[in-house]
Amino acid sequence: KSTFDPKEHQHMRYNPLRDSWVLVSAHRMKRPWKGQVEKPSEDNIPRHDPNNPLCPGSTRANGEVNPEYDSTFVFENDFPALQPDAPDPGSDHHPLFQTKAARGVCKVMCFHPWSDITLPLMQPGEIRKVIDKWVELIEELGPTYPWVQIFENKGAMMGCSNPHPHCQVWASSFLPNEPALADRTQRAFLQEHGEPMLVQYARKEAQVQERVVVENEDWLIVVPYWATWPFQTLLLPRRHVLRLTDLTGKERDSLASIMKRLLTKYDNLFEISFPYSMGWHGAPTGTHLTEDMSHWQLHAHYYPPLLRSATVRKFMVGYEMLAQEQRDLTPEQALLTFVDVPMRK
Amino acid sequence: KSTFDPKEHQHMRYNPLRDSWVLVSAHRMKRPWKGQVEKPSEDNIPRHDPNNPLCPGSTRANGEVNPEYDSTFVFENDFPALQPDAPDPGSDHHPLFQTKAARGVCKVMCFHPWSDITLPLMQPGEIRKVIDKWVELIEELGPTYPWVQIFENKGAMMGCSNPHPHCQVWASSFLPNEPALADRTQRAFLQEHGEPMLVQYARKEAQVQERVVVENEDWLIVVPYWATWPFQTLLLPRRHVLRLTDLTGKERDSLASIMKRLLTKYDNLFEISFPYSMGWHGAPTGTHLTEDMSHWQLHAHYYPPLLRSATVRKFMVGYEMLAQEQRDLTPEQALLTFVDVPMRK
Ligand SMILES: O=P(O)(O)O[C@H]1O[C@H](CO)[C@@H](O)[C@H](O)[C@H]1O
Ligand SMILES: O=P(O)(O)O[C@H]1O[C@H](CO)[C@@H](O)[C@H](O)[C@H]1O
Repeated sequence: KSTFDPKEHQHMRYNPLRDSWVLVSAHRMKRPWKGQVEKPSEDNIPRHDPNNPLCPGSTRANGEVNPEYDSTFVFENDFPALQPDAPDPGSDHHPLFQTKAARGVCKVMCFHPWSDITLPLMQPGEIRKVIDKWVELIEELGPTYPWVQIFENKGAMMGCSNPHPHCQVWASSFLPNEPALADRTQRAFLQEHGEPMLVQYARKEAQVQERVVVENEDWLIVVPYWATWPFQTLLLPRRHVLRLTDLTGKERDSLASIMKRLLTKYDNLFEISFPYSMGWHGAPTGTHLTEDMSHWQLHAHYYPPLLRSATVRKFMVGYEMLAQEQRDLTPEQALLTFVDVPMRK
Repeated sequence: KSTFDPKEHQHMRYNPLRDSWVLVSAHRMKRPWKGQVEKPSEDNIPRHDPNNPLCPGSTRANGEVNPEYDSTFVFENDFPALQPDAPDPGSDHHPLFQTKAARGVCKVMCFHPWSDITLPLMQPGEIRKVIDKWVELIEELGPTYPWVQIFENKGAMMGCSNPHPHCQVWASSFLPNEPALADRTQRAFLQEHGEPMLVQYARKEAQVQERVVVENEDWLIVVPYWATWPFQTLLLPRRHVLRLTDLTGKERDSLASIMKRLLTKYDNLFEISFPYSMGWHGAPTGTHLTEDMSHWQLHAHYYPPLLRSATVRKFMVGYEMLAQEQRDLTPEQALLTFVDVPMRK
């Protein structure tokens, strides 16, 4: 019998944050692809389009006029999935027909006045302003809401309906499924092992250096051992940090710098403006602000859909939806691809 | 304060099979869509293409020649994600770097010799042969493997790389995440309520008739109360059935008939060959074949991606990946859309 080689032999890897397994079948990369190809991302975006509701000076759906902003700009989503005042559906429900109240606010945050720029092309000082605004939003919404989800959908492939560089912030009266799961797993890990899960994880990854994409004094970005998406990454502070609001000024600067390095790598991987969904997970807020949340470690997930090229994506469909997530190259193979990518802009 | 109206007020619904919540924000349908539009599905598929490895008489990647089959045809996937003989990765792993063995087989099953036909256009007798073959595959692989996942990815949008009507069967040496979850939740429900979850659920849905898409003497298809995808459906037997292998001949016939009715509705919804991923969940097999699995009820999930039209899909991206699934119309509104759909072919 041959010895186990992760590049040749399918196996499963455990995702300790999600308490679930991913099937890794690296030999599947050999299969020819005759399925759907994606449209290459648009590259003729005008710097300023008066009809784009995200541009400075534009009129939005609700009639409001955007200021002539010259850095970041935050406004309430005109079609919010969460509103602050939805009535309560009551509580006397059959176990198979359960409904629960959901309240919150949805905001949109423009990163820059120009539509034809993206985070990796922005100056570190401009990215720092984005980070400062994220911190402000957590400070503003955190006391009221237990969860403030900051996320960016980048690229049409990721359902982004506006090319202007922006992210969204959805704050909710409840802890959504994914953070509730991460809360449970991180809590159990600290209890069992005496150290926060992702603090230990960052230290181990920094030691073995098998999956580190970029790093600096304060931060580490890895293709996690349990990555699901082909070029998924996990951004981690080196020290124990609960929330974005706990970062020092120096850490915000070094975060701007490492984000720029990661996103430049992404863009150069297939020589396109790389699509992804990303988001921040920090310790829950609201009433949790005064609780012991030391099992949490701040982190950001990057979930990019592409697999082989600018136009061939990984489809998470039949088997993945009905049985288990599956990937076609090992995280270590993904890392090697990253290492080969030049850092030019 | 106004009274709660699910069509106007966002709320959460509980998915008892997945023990998680979905955010329902029906008012989001009002938002304009300027994002990615999908390519309409191809409609110039030749009935027979000698270069298509799924056609009768074609030579496949491994050099084998397909027989001139005239009904269903099953062969081993030439690029399998699971193979029967992968070496064991060992078991002495750090808790954050856990690997587990994964073994199995992957098969492809053609539904029909023609490439330009789909299940809803096939005769009930032809669909019955597909069902008979599914049963045979569970009989063949079930004794060896605890889980035999039958699934169909239909349409390029769902990552299907070959237009020839077919499904896949991936049998594994492990219980994947999704069935492991459904096993846990169904087991707990039976223990607590004295009746299998989905037997009770089908009975209730048949009574209230608010979410029933189609039904017959043996089967019921509903937009589940906790549906995530806009036009998601759940296919349920009326009586308690553990596995496809337990169906009577009459139930296989009525299954063929109700599948044809559902899929015809789907095709007529936006007047295209409707894309989806579907798959069967029955009680686990392998050593579970001799255990008490009466908490299970056989069911099939249909997960179609489209939201508003043939070309506008629902993107499960940023918020959905990082926080919680979210839908833009209520399951009852989806049902009303189904009811309005004519049954013409
Ligand atoms: O096996 P296929 O049809 O080539 O591939 C398709 O289905 C598989 C199982 O759901 C997925 O892993 C692939 O991403 C998808 O493209
Ligand atoms: O709010 P947007 O950018 O219009 O919409 C996008 O992001 C949302 C949050 O992830 C998703 O629910 C939508 O399906 C997606 O198209």
